Amino acid sequence: MTFSPLVEQLLESLRVLPGVGPRTAQRMALHLLERDREGGLRLSQVMAEALDRVGYCRRCRNLTEQSLCSICEETRRSDRTICVVESPADLMAIEEAGGYQGRYFVLHGHLSPLDGIGPEDLGLDALEKLVREEAPDEVILATNPTVEGEASAHYIAEQLRPLEIRLSRLAYGVPMGGDLEYVDSGTLSRAFLGRQAFSD
Amino acid sequence: MTFSPLVEQLLESLRVLPGVGPRTAQRMALHLLERDREGGLRLSQVMAEALDRVGYCRRCRNLTEQSLCSICEETRRSDRTICVVESPADLMAIEEAGGYQGRYFVLHGHLSPLDGIGPEDLGLDALEKLVREEAPDEVILATNPTVEGEASAHYIAEQLRPLEIRLSRLAYGVPMGGDLEYVDSGTLSRAFLGRQAFSD
Ligand SMILES: [Zn+2]
Ligand SMILES: [Zn+2]
Repeated sequence: MTFSPLVEQLLESLRVLPGVGPRTAQRMALHLLERDREGGLRLSQVMAEALDRVGYCRRCRNLTEQSLCSICEETRRSDRTICVVESPADLMAIEEAGGYQGRYFVLHGHLSPLDGIGPEDLGLDALEKLVREEAPDEVILATNPTVEGEASAHYIAEQLRPLEIRLSRLAYGVPMGGDLEYVDSGTLSRAFLGRQAFSD
Repeated sequence: MTFSPLVEQLLESLRVLPGVGPRTAQRMALHLLERDREGGLRLSQVMAEALDRVGYCRRCRNLTEQSLCSICEETRRSDRTICVVESPADLMAIEEAGGYQGRYFVLHGHLSPLDGIGPEDLGLDALEKLVREEAPDEVILATNPTVEGEASAHYIAEQLRPLEIRLSRLAYGVPMGGDLEYVDSGTLSRAFLGRQAFSD
């Protein structure tokens, strides 16, 4: 026994969403069909429109349906630093943390030769052009602290080195509020290497 | 800081899905925008089509985009029993359990005066007409073992009583594979009341 063909198609299509398995897909499909057709119709319309119209900011590659994203439009932000991140989610996490007032550049991924993701997919020529034109004081390479993120940061550093701009990387160390017992050994040894003078 | 207006609309719309909070909505939206626009476009199309075309089977009120659902179309099933369930998910659970070979009737809810859900919303006139016309040997009232499910079963039983057809209810008892320690006391006392002669 299965549901009707169209309901089965809906169940299958819902599985493109991350974290949605067969049981969750069934719960979602029946919820929409039984209890919220209006909300579902609106979702399908907004989804189609967003997927059609949302593209990259022409300056920083942040997601936007405009030519320039809202961060690039903000005149009160400093042009003196550009923070390079792997994803819009990383950008949002930095914004939510607060404190950073500069600009961004979004790679939408990291170098991954095995998956065929090279410098052109990450917009690295556009990044070099941006840095050349705007000549910021500093470029912060805030790619993820993973093997691929490290490799991407090193590649970008090599590419930007001739421009003689200060390059930096986020500090490694133990996460705030954590228990040393549960910090992995790689992070712990990095935190020792990067230890700082105690001051109060 | 927020995402662009269209991305924010997508985040908000995704929250109509059950179990989807702000973090999950963000993960879903960015996954579709960054990694699977094609899957997302297909999902939006199938969702719109399903919400537009899937309705109720004219005989049993199961979800279908046809006039009759696949269960009602199946000629090999017995017309001698009709099993009344609250939802298509319950119907599917009974089908997956196997063993039942009869027909169904789907209420799409239970009586709930406080929410304004009355007999007409559950198609009880259609159920009475169906039972009158097809004169099955038995109607199984498989509404949920909850206060509302019980009340609905009793209401339906009253309505069908003049037709003098055998009415039954699923057995109450301890769930298979469970540990008595964790069975709630209501279920346990029902299981005592319904105890059966031991045979092997
Ligand atoms: Zn931008
Ligand atoms: Zn049917």
